[in-house]
Amino acid sequence: MQENNLLSALLSDAVSEFSKLPSIGSKTALRLVLHLLKQPEESILAFSQSLIKLKENVRFCKICNNISDSDICPICQQNSRNQNNICVVEGIKDVISIEQTGQYNGLYHVLGGIISPMDGIGPNNLSIDLLENRVKNLNNGEIIFALPATMEGDTTCFFIHKKIKNENIKFSTLARGISIGDDLEYADELTLGRSIINRVDFTINS
Amino acid sequence: MQENNLLSALLSDAVSEFSKLPSIGSKTALRLVLHLLKQPEESILAFSQSLIKLKENVRFCKICNNISDSDICPICQQNSRNQNNICVVEGIKDVISIEQTGQYNGLYHVLGGIISPMDGIGPNNLSIDLLENRVKNLNNGEIIFALPATMEGDTTCFFIHKKIKNENIKFSTLARGISIGDDLEYADELTLGRSIINRVDFTINS
Repeated sequence: MQENNLLSALLSDAVSEFSKLPSIGSKTALRLVLHLLKQPEESILAFSQSLIKLKENVRFCKICNNISDSDICPICQQNSRNQNNICVVEGIKDVISIEQTGQYNGLYHVLGGIISPMDGIGPNNLSIDLLENRVKNLNNGEIIFALPATMEGDTTCFFIHKKIKNENIKFSTLARGISIGDDLEYADELTLGRSIINRVDFTINS
Repeated sequence: MQENNLLSALLSDAVSEFSKLPSIGSKTALRLVLHLLKQPEESILAFSQSLIKLKENVRFCKICNNISDSDICPICQQNSRNQNNICVVEGIKDVISIEQTGQYNGLYHVLGGIISPMDGIGPNNLSIDLLENRVKNLNNGEIIFALPATMEGDTTCFFIHKKIKNENIKFSTLARGISIGDDLEYADELTLGRSIINRVDFTINS
């Protein structure tokens, strides 16, 4: 669909802005814009203002680089959390995902990406120096890599491990294996192989 | 996903605004907002401004109720079009779809919806009076109903036909039948039945 077929330059502009969003094609963009056009003016203002306000006022936690409304994010402010566990993640979405599991009670470190030469992202684009400084204060701490199970994710793990390893720190990474609910026949060979190598003790307490 | 888990009130606000859009759930909303957050401030301003400008300045054609930047839309301004054919459609999207076929050279009339008591939309919510006035100026004209093939669409056709029928006007509706590329076995019975009743002459000019 060509946007200049839309008969109204204003409509074309709005549709072309929406089309720039990931996974939004021009047909979906048109549908979203026409939906917004039907809303009262206050709703559209609220929609637009929420974005501008976010961009203008958002900050990143000075400790863990997580998104935050203040200098220190709510997670780093919680003293009840285990201060010696740092979970290293690619982005803010991963913090939210892990928090939702309810299985982790330590701190985070948001890299802001992973090393990916194809995309022009090197170690200097990530908050690795910040992590290096944090690690110095750890006392028998643990660094948990929760990075994507891809070549880029693994490269990033190796790079960080090499840079900050010291005798007082334990390193771990998320378990990789069969997804819960999956049939074995549909698991790929790499995953299935890894799940055999890393098999865990099976004991029923009775 | 609960938006108040997002750690930043600003982020939550923006995600909740995006979640109000049709077919955008909270996970997609978060992805879109984080994408926008990575863009430079000018891009976010351009995105927001395009919506506000659209809402503030958009007009609807005084002749056919189509979206327009001026009082009369570009289609109604084209004298080369057949002024005696009026294609009645539900919304702006339908005008764009029909224009893209390149098979129609008449004018349009945008109802702004179809009669749907379930959604509280009655004839008075639609631009039927405007159509009634246009029809008076037609000379041996044709009204082409291009409304959804649903009960609501049919009801709207019948209502308008009853209201504006006169001897000088021919009424027609889009052909309903097997979609091009479809196998017969997958067509529903109503469509297949209709396509037998409305079968068309098959002559090869050789």
